[in-house]
Amino acid sequence: MKKIRVYVAGASGKMGQEVIRTILKEDDLLLVGASDTRHQGMDVGFVVGAPRVGIDITGPLEIGNLRSSRADVLVDFTNPQSVLKNSKTAIMAGVVPIIGTTGLDEAEIGEIRTLVEKEKTGAFLAPNFSIGAILMMRFARESAKYFPNVDIIEMHHDQKLDAPSGTALKTAEGILEVREPMIQGHPNEYEKIQGARGADIAGIHIHSVRLPGLIAHQEVIFGGLGQALTIRHDAFSRETYMPGVMLSIRKSSELTELVIGLDNFLD
Amino acid sequence: MKKIRVYVAGASGKMGQEVIRTILKEDDLLLVGASDTRHQGMDVGFVVGAPRVGIDITGPLEIGNLRSSRADVLVDFTNPQSVLKNSKTAIMAGVVPIIGTTGLDEAEIGEIRTLVEKEKTGAFLAPNFSIGAILMMRFARESAKYFPNVDIIEMHHDQKLDAPSGTALKTAEGILEVREPMIQGHPNEYEKIQGARGADIAGIHIHSVRLPGLIAHQEVIFGGLGQALTIRHDAFSRETYMPGVMLSIRKSSELTELVIGLDNFLD
Amino acid sequence: MKKIRVYVAGASGKMGQEVIRTILKEDDLLLVGASDTRHQGMDVGFVVGAPRVGIDITGPLEIGNLRSSRADVLVDFTNPQSVLKNSKTAIMAGVVPIIGTTGLDEAEIGEIRTLVEKEKTGAFLAPNFSIGAILMMRFARESAKYFPNVDIIEMHHDQKLDAPSGTALKTAEGILEVREPMIQGHPNEYEKIQGARGADIAGIHIHSVRLPGLIAHQEVIFGGLGQALTIRHDAFSRETYMPGVMLSIRKSSELTELVIGLDNFLD
Amino acid sequence: MKKIRVYVAGASGKMGQEVIRTILKEDDLLLVGASDTRHQGMDVGFVVGAPRVGIDITGPLEIGNLRSSRADVLVDFTNPQSVLKNSKTAIMAGVVPIIGTTGLDEAEIGEIRTLVEKEKTGAFLAPNFSIGAILMMRFARESAKYFPNVDIIEMHHDQKLDAPSGTALKTAEGILEVREPMIQGHPNEYEKIQGARGADIAGIHIHSVRLPGLIAHQEVIFGGLGQALTIRHDAFSRETYMPGVMLSIRKSSELTELVIGLDNFLD
Repeated sequence: MKKIRVYVAGASGKMGQEVIRTILKEDDLLLVGASDTRHQGMDVGFVVGAPRVGIDITGPLEIGNLRSSRADVLVDFTNPQSVLKNSKTAIMAGVVPIIGTTGLDEAEIGEIRTLVEKEKTGAFLAPNFSIGAILMMRFARESAKYFPNVDIIEMHHDQKLDAPSGTALKTAEGILEVREPMIQGHPNEYEKIQGARGADIAGIHIHSVRLPGLIAHQEVIFGGLGQALTIRHDAFSRETYMPGVMLSIRKSSELTELVIGLDNFLD
Repeated sequence: MKKIRVYVAGASGKMGQEVIRTILKEDDLLLVGASDTRHQGMDVGFVVGAPRVGIDITGPLEIGNLRSSRADVLVDFTNPQSVLKNSKTAIMAGVVPIIGTTGLDEAEIGEIRTLVEKEKTGAFLAPNFSIGAILMMRFARESAKYFPNVDIIEMHHDQKLDAPSGTALKTAEGILEVREPMIQGHPNEYEKIQGARGADIAGIHIHSVRLPGLIAHQEVIFGGLGQALTIRHDAFSRETYMPGVMLSIRKSSELTELVIGLDNFLD
Repeated sequence: MKKIRVYVAGASGKMGQEVIRTILKEDDLLLVGASDTRHQGMDVGFVVGAPRVGIDITGPLEIGNLRSSRADVLVDFTNPQSVLKNSKTAIMAGVVPIIGTTGLDEAEIGEIRTLVEKEKTGAFLAPNFSIGAILMMRFARESAKYFPNVDIIEMHHDQKLDAPSGTALKTAEGILEVREPMIQGHPNEYEKIQGARGADIAGIHIHSVRLPGLIAHQEVIFGGLGQALTIRHDAFSRETYMPGVMLSIRKSSELTELVIGLDNFLD
Repeated sequence: MKKIRVYVAGASGKMGQEVIRTILKEDDLLLVGASDTRHQGMDVGFVVGAPRVGIDITGPLEIGNLRSSRADVLVDFTNPQSVLKNSKTAIMAGVVPIIGTTGLDEAEIGEIRTLVEKEKTGAFLAPNFSIGAILMMRFARESAKYFPNVDIIEMHHDQKLDAPSGTALKTAEGILEVREPMIQGHPNEYEKIQGARGADIAGIHIHSVRLPGLIAHQEVIFGGLGQALTIRHDAFSRETYMPGVMLSIRKSSELTELVIGLDNFLD
């Protein structure tokens, strides 16, 4: 079996390290390069707490290093600024970038699309690499066809600043593709204390729990005659993203266009 | 064993019927009378869907009927107006009223207390007869000593008008007896959509879910370093109150003062 | 709009009554007949606790009554013996039977199929009319493609005799259509007390909780790297089946073959 | 305020490191020494991923080091062999050992008790330092007085070998102090597949879920008339033990006897 050759940008970051640790355990994947401004010149195994790998961390990503590595894909979970630059470098080098950021705007995504078409190389971009979370959103969308009444409870650690979470908002958007806006609850219901009924998006109520100790959890609860249907996802650690990243590597290596969203790689 | 003699007011109401059905199954309790303006003259068994009992429903509660029944206690889940009148009648007849309403104001409770002291009869009043809900509130109060960060999620059918529920508010009040007001969540947190963080009571956030199919459910979630402690109560039907009503009957028959709250009868 | 004309067999039974109460609330459905050996000659509204409907309960189902009612469908939740006989009567009368029983064997289903083909009338048969439960099983099957490790917890009232529940077994069967048998848990794991790890079906563990107060609940929990995905269904009352029964009525009235399973009517 | 002086044995172990990181953040605690056979001579801050502390890791614990550190307590989460030796050393040095192991037998605990009495120094021993888990067990014990029917579901990662978990067994034991053995479920219930009803301890059923991704979770579910009361604890990381360890340090520094169990330090 020919192994898929993977280059990792941002190798010293938390996600970069996790990606590398996971790749090293997969039989069909081969780590062929790693870039980061930190730990330059150190063996990547040492940086991620694993045995020596034989690959040193280069400085910032360069097209020469990428080319000589003969990588199939570049995994990039760095910040939006680096991501755009790195992705372009990868595409020019004929390497498919796998981009994990929510920070690119429409214009920047347009730039990537144009370059992909010109260079006839693929690119993959996803705001969320959690397969479990994506299945949750998909099931929520399906359930809403039969159970229009739904509340979303998302629960995170108390250092999270924004509420509701991006995933909760995306879940609601998905539901609203199959369900009309409507008034949920009793038309005459009232709040004795403001906010009790949560955030209201076209009738869907989202409740944001923030507590120390929690990590990232979401419940989507559908209520119907005499029943409830609940879909819950718990993300316990950064590892939660790894099955999605590995799936993306396997599905992206032969891409010849820009694909957005992990959902495309699930049956 | 001497059985406890029970008279039920509002026998034709939903709670009254449930109380009667339950009493008929208990070996140590004896139904000795039942009043209601509906079904007057009908056998009480027939009214509650049970075999013939041999006791007819009288009209409105009268002191003569109560006295001749030699009842030990009067169970009354009717409306606040009737409850006050019925309780006074019971106390005058030397019968301990067991009062299940949240609708009496301070002055009315004062009237009952005064009469109880004068007549040297007991009385029992409770806003909530659900032992499970009372244990939940008790455990929440204990937990808050060690885990000050807490959110409450209460879930009810979508015909409920008010939010948060009375039980959620009482739970928060109990917690605030042992925990100082504080800011929960990150001091810089913000709502992208108003209401996401729920109702805020001295830092405790309450979230009210309303969906068809649901009955009455509450979760109290405490978060601490690396952990969560959750206490949940599900009330699936009116039966949920019966263990508390039966306990009250057994504990009240010898009362000689006004006792308020089922918590007094739990160890 | 032409209303769908519905005849209900077993009208005095618990499911029959619930079906009738629900039909009476639906604008596009018309109750045109009701049979049962009990309450013969009584108005069906009176039997189900609703106002007078103007239809009396006939005795056992007869082809003459069915024909003169000009029913489109016959809803039958009686016992297996009656169901087979009633279904044949319906098919002969050109009425589509909607059959809610798990008690027919292969030979009996074969008889129905043969008759359906001969008479060119449709028939619908489903072991489970709970849309929520069917979605749960469908989502479980989809999830298993990405998360092969799964445990099932089913929770019922303590009067249920068999364990695991039929729904839990069916859920496991569905999962095994997409997932190979495998050893879950650690290969060296051991039970300090027998039964702790539950019932094992090709590696899937099923746990049966039986407690008073519970109704019918099931959780399917998938575990993967750093995450869990949980699908839960709660059936709180007999009403839980009504959306599925109504959907079946609407989808069956034009059937011209035997269809088995509510899943066929969901997108 | 006089700070409590803490010495940590097994400083390089996972629990030892976590304890040190936590102590370094607490204002009223002062780290005064750290022993381990690994990392000898290295600054303890460096070992635990924190800035330089100014304390080097000594080799195996010695009475001279302990004495010269003027420690109030010794925290020891090493293995049973070391724990016994270290505890004796501490007691002889007038330092209160805080012992976190389940591996000592009755005879060994007896040795510690005898030495404590002779030296008039205290000692603290606990099998479980999770305050949340201990509250869960306490609440379960209280609930069983009112709800005798109970099932326990414990859920752990799939590398755990034994089932049921020690915490689940301890929870059942606690419940059995207030509840008589009884048959739960229907007397005629039967298993279609062996093990479905879980492990049976005097009528209490324990169900052990093992899945990758999970950490350590337990639900205790009580069922009663028309209701369920659930107590759940989720341990998401090793940090879960830290509030209990810190509480033990604060409560143990003045001990003059052997105390067993964190429960003694909770109100």
